[in-house]
Amino acid sequence: MQLSKPRVIIVGAGFGGLKAAKSLKNAKVDVILIDKTNHHLFQPLLYQVATSALSPGDIAIPIRTILRKNKNVHILMDEVLDVKLDERKVILNDGELNYDYLILAPGARHSYFGNSQWERIAPGLKSLKDALHIRETILSSFEKAERFYSTSDRDKYLNFVIIGGGPTGVELAGAIAEIGKKTMLPDFPILKSDDINVFLIEANDRLLKSYSEDLSEYTLEALQRIGVKVLLKTKVTNITDDGVEIGKDFIETTNIFWAAGNESSSLNYRLGVPLDNIGRVIVEKDMSIPGYPDVFVIGDAAYYIDDKGNQLPGIAPVAIQQAEYVSKIIKKRLSKNKRPPFKYFDKGSMATIGRAKAVANFGKIKFKGLIAWLLWTTVHIFFLINFRNRLRVLFEWFWYYLTNQPGARIIVYNDGKKITSKAKEPETQETLNI
Amino acid sequence: MQLSKPRVIIVGAGFGGLKAAKSLKNAKVDVILIDKTNHHLFQPLLYQVATSALSPGDIAIPIRTILRKNKNVHILMDEVLDVKLDERKVILNDGELNYDYLILAPGARHSYFGNSQWERIAPGLKSLKDALHIRETILSSFEKAERFYSTSDRDKYLNFVIIGGGPTGVELAGAIAEIGKKTMLPDFPILKSDDINVFLIEANDRLLKSYSEDLSEYTLEALQRIGVKVLLKTKVTNITDDGVEIGKDFIETTNIFWAAGNESSSLNYRLGVPLDNIGRVIVEKDMSIPGYPDVFVIGDAAYYIDDKGNQLPGIAPVAIQQAEYVSKIIKKRLSKNKRPPFKYFDKGSMATIGRAKAVANFGKIKFKGLIAWLLWTTVHIFFLINFRNRLRVLFEWFWYYLTNQPGARIIVYNDGKKITSKAKEPETQETLNI
Repeated sequence: MQLSKPRVIIVGAGFGGLKAAKSLKNAKVDVILIDKTNHHLFQPLLYQVATSALSPGDIAIPIRTILRKNKNVHILMDEVLDVKLDERKVILNDGELNYDYLILAPGARHSYFGNSQWERIAPGLKSLKDALHIRETILSSFEKAERFYSTSDRDKYLNFVIIGGGPTGVELAGAIAEIGKKTMLPDFPILKSDDINVFLIEANDRLLKSYSEDLSEYTLEALQRIGVKVLLKTKVTNITDDGVEIGKDFIETTNIFWAAGNESSSLNYRLGVPLDNIGRVIVEKDMSIPGYPDVFVIGDAAYYIDDKGNQLPGIAPVAIQQAEYVSKIIKKRLSKNKRPPFKYFDKGSMATIGRAKAVANFGKIKFKGLIAWLLWTTVHIFFLINFRNRLRVLFEWFWYYLTNQPGARIIVYNDGKKITSKAKEPETQETLNI
Repeated sequence: MQLSKPRVIIVGAGFGGLKAAKSLKNAKVDVILIDKTNHHLFQPLLYQVATSALSPGDIAIPIRTILRKNKNVHILMDEVLDVKLDERKVILNDGELNYDYLILAPGARHSYFGNSQWERIAPGLKSLKDALHIRETILSSFEKAERFYSTSDRDKYLNFVIIGGGPTGVELAGAIAEIGKKTMLPDFPILKSDDINVFLIEANDRLLKSYSEDLSEYTLEALQRIGVKVLLKTKVTNITDDGVEIGKDFIETTNIFWAAGNESSSLNYRLGVPLDNIGRVIVEKDMSIPGYPDVFVIGDAAYYIDDKGNQLPGIAPVAIQQAEYVSKIIKKRLSKNKRPPFKYFDKGSMATIGRAKAVANFGKIKFKGLIAWLLWTTVHIFFLINFRNRLRVLFEWFWYYLTNQPGARIIVYNDGKKITSKAKEPETQETLNI
């Protein structure tokens, strides 16, 4: 018999982990929530930080602030390196902790399909660090392109390659085309819209593979209309500091952004339990690891088949619903045979295309165009974690649409350092195109 | 006779350089504005980014956006490495440029009084990079202090040392005491206000040496009341990774912030012209370099004595007025003997102390307390470069004062890495103080 309250350890403060901590608010448990960062990130809007429309502070809040009123939650900023399932403990960077229940919600990473050396050149979009890196790359490229307009270097600064035609890649490509070919141009008088090339590369035969075919078609046309060159059925064969190789072709570029492939958190590989082909833990119908009824895996890190035989997608509503489900089990201390199977209620999914269009898919009901975009806007504002962030994001969007100027075009780290390619002649009045 | 328009090169897009570019809007000249970053920074509010009250995007705007309507301005993001005065050209990282007129406004750096090795451990507060570094240091220290509360490591994370009792140091120390001992504490239930020590070290016998004595006294008391330990007549003798040595005493700390000593931009040293003891160019009454009537130095980089024999201080209104003055000379193509001497109109100066107090000094008129703070707020909002930033900053301040929660407590880069000191025993329920 336990004299003290059971301890629940939650790994990860994304949508799943955060929801689990909140759902356990009135449970008679002690909760320790562990995350590598100090903030909860509203990932769906990360591409807007990457394209200077929003600032980090608009879409991230300190975990401690969100859970300030949850008296049974203790927050640790650390990384979980390993889990000893048989000893019921997690190993951190600094120390180890025992648990009575464990909820693993470490999320997913991008997959480079075995080419981890590409990651350095072609970063993904999973964290604020990623988004700011992309932002600085885009802004610096424009500065350099303006400088070297009359040299052959210009092209590589003005080619932007996004790899992956799922929602992230579509949103990123659309936003880059918007700011690159419209919004930012007035600030760079030498550059012309036609100079800027935005490529979206997708291995499949259509974009947004998980959506219906007509929405894929609509998305393709909408992207093309704002100037994105979409290359379907195209595989990336190599990525170097000079550019992207796609079979026999080569795109010279310093701007390569990876939005393809999902792979589970590296933590999963250390558990020593069965995983699927992208590293997700194959969980039972109650979200627990086979043989370990008090250890749950939720969100992107879990592989779950619903009763229709479908894999659940790696989106926020799935993680949130699984978190609520698991918290109920813990709250009621349900033994394994008393746990009903998890059921996902599909609320649909959406993706934006450029500034005022989107596609939305709710089972048989589909929206596209402006109305989908308004729906997308409303839902995302609503789901933002707190009122202050909602106000800030509303303000930023309102300002952007009113003035056509994204609000966060700040380069913090690339401060005028020497550029690898040298200008061949001293810059004269002629070279500068004044 | 010149067939083309004269070219004016402006080095630096701070208050001085930016004002010069704007003032030349209708002049028949081509302007090239060169800055290491892509943005103009409203430095007076930098300490608020450092203490998480504001985000970078709130106080910085892209230079290109500010000068979008100035058709005669060309913007280059680069660093000026040298100036060949006799050849009338500037040397950049990538290239060189000839000029007809040159306005140098490269600003100032902190001075480490010959101990440049201290800079790595004790960064200053001059750029967004600096401010974000300080922010991450403060937030990470709190996270670590909470983890290691029961070990002897705690102290070094909770001692905050600010070196330099001028306006920057006073504002930074006050803001750190506010967030450290009040605002952030509810998020760290283990920490107590008395655990946190904020030290402000000043070599002189009073703070704000350039203000009147009674304002110095008021500032001292106000800081002490919010919990800052002010050490006057105290010199720093050494700075190491373990802490700060002040004579025989030693403060163990990982949080050391430098706000002392001004030193001119390193560019000045390469000009080969007479400088004062902190590297400022000794300019003539028309702000030009002796012997070079078409080369001007303005702002913090210039040493100018007014007709009362006073040195002009390194504050924004000085740089702005000098910029307007020099622009007039250029616009009217005034030859040296036709140029009136520069006259500075002293509008006074102000500094804040914590959240709702300030001191303001306008010649004989002095304000302190809440009214000074309201004045400070109004002036700073007014001087923010554009309407959007004013709205954003107003919003952030309003929210902060309403909710007592600074809006930008985000750690982006220190993500749960291993901490040097190891926790001595595995973390158990007891160690975590749950």
